[in-house]
Amino acid sequence: MIVGTEWSVDAEGCRAELLSDMQAVQRVCERIISDLDLQVMGEALWHKFPSPGGVTALFLLTESHLACHTYPETGIATFNLYCCRPRPHWPWEDRLADMLGAARVTVRFHLRGAQGDNAEGAFDSSDRALYGQEPSIM
Amino acid sequence: MIVGTEWSVDAEGCRAELLSDMQAVQRVCERIISDLDLQVMGEALWHKFPSPGGVTALFLLTESHLACHTYPETGIATFNLYCCRPRPHWPWEDRLADMLGAARVTVRFHLRGAQGDNAEGAFDSSDRALYGQEPSIM
Repeated sequence: MIVGTEWSVDAEGCRAELLSDMQAVQRVCERIISDLDLQVMGEALWHKFPSPGGVTALFLLTESHLACHTYPETGIATFNLYCCRPRPHWPWEDRLADMLGAARVTVRFHLRGAQGDNAEGAFDSSDRALYGQEPSIM
Repeated sequence: MIVGTEWSVDAEGCRAELLSDMQAVQRVCERIISDLDLQVMGEALWHKFPSPGGVTALFLLTESHLACHTYPETGIATFNLYCCRPRPHWPWEDRLADMLGAARVTVRFHLRGAQGDNAEGAFDSSDRALYGQEPSIM
């Protein structure tokens, strides 16, 4: 039984000053939320860690949740988007390159609640499938 | 560059009345947090959906985050635990069987920020590796 799809996204080579800028991270999260027509419930949880100033953001959605963690010291930002209803493809690679300066983005996805090899996969910045096939979404 | 480990856990065959019981879900989350010595920052986000009463919980941790979604209509509970520091193995199968009546538990894990085939894996209720090898954790 499939209860949702989760995208697990790792962006490398991001600009450190953007990863420690809560407003820059907020703009990315808000863009994901608005482009995919997600519904936020309540206030998001935000935390900025001491220097070098990594940021954590958690959004509770009617569709499930969105989480973001940034690591300015390594130039990495990670995202988890878990949706219990079909959503369109989001251009993680282009958007994260544009908004955070990401040089490489790896997107993994798997179906939650499901068993079997066809329940997961990954693709990289060039949209080349590393394995699996993205679930059919609208 | 590895920035954390994520466990993605799907529990099937759970007792519906426990999945719609916020206190029961809270007991599971608190047990994970206390057993693994995780540090919660701020108030957790909680939501109970209308009948059949699925529950969502999000905890912002100094170690990253813990998320739980339950689906009483299908007997499924899912958990995401993302930790940026090594943590001991948590006996997901035994605990979720005991606390939610789970009949089958699948645990996937992967290293965040990392590339390569050795960065992920999964095991099932009998601790049989489906693929990969759990990262060396203490």
